[in-house]
Amino acid sequence: MDTEQIRALYGKWIDELWHADPDDMDQLAEQLVTPDFVGHWPGEEVSGPAQLAEMLRRSVSLFSGVRVEVVVGPVVENDLVSARWTFSGKYNGELPGSPAAAGTEVSFAGTDIFRCRDGRFAEYWVSSDGLQFMAQLGFTPKP
Amino acid sequence: MDTEQIRALYGKWIDELWHADPDDMDQLAEQLVTPDFVGHWPGEEVSGPAQLAEMLRRSVSLFSGVRVEVVVGPVVENDLVSARWTFSGKYNGELPGSPAAAGTEVSFAGTDIFRCRDGRFAEYWVSSDGLQFMAQLGFTPKP
Repeated sequence: MDTEQIRALYGKWIDELWHADPDDMDQLAEQLVTPDFVGHWPGEEVSGPAQLAEMLRRSVSLFSGVRVEVVVGPVVENDLVSARWTFSGKYNGELPGSPAAAGTEVSFAGTDIFRCRDGRFAEYWVSSDGLQFMAQLGFTPKP
Repeated sequence: MDTEQIRALYGKWIDELWHADPDDMDQLAEQLVTPDFVGHWPGEEVSGPAQLAEMLRRSVSLFSGVRVEVVVGPVVENDLVSARWTFSGKYNGELPGSPAAAGTEVSFAGTDIFRCRDGRFAEYWVSSDGLQFMAQLGFTPKP
């Protein structure tokens, strides 16, 4: 894969997969990641396109009007691509225990790195501003 | 700056700055970042080398034996460089309210992106696994 192919693949990840109808996420995930894909979320590993699609559905399930936008990059070298993004959406009020009101606008940033192979993503590492995200839903770290 | 110069600069950021004696961090920060450097930490902006050194001192102040290691990348393209790292250290028991015992081993990951200019870093964005970090110090998100 050359630099432009990798850049285009990352564009599909952001523009198509994250904004897809949840019912279409399995099919899109199969197009974008290898069968042996491994995703490293904080505290959780995801294996293969089906688990990836499930993780994405879970990530968007608390929000309407989800927008994921690249704000720095993508940075491409050899088989790696990295970018910083922001996630925004309107909270639907359905997280148990959250004191945030339905309709609260939530926005936080994160950074991706992918390793590519054979035209798809084979491995993924992500960090995001989890404390800021939880604070917007009304949760703060307590002993 | 060519790719190898940027890679070497990032190596100094990780190997020298993060592992420096806190008293040397001001001088090292001046070597590594521009006078108008801006760093985007979650929920906090840092401007210039002196504020950067202060942020680094604060970041390592709760730990002994701090190690920061690159685990994916660096990924370099044009004036941008990204990498994933892990931070590890032994908690010194000095965070008010933390139920974690002194001596607790803490380890978490994060991802950097820098923009370079004139041989130094001019802008910085970082995301890290803050929820996992806080959990290791005994804090969980609560309403």
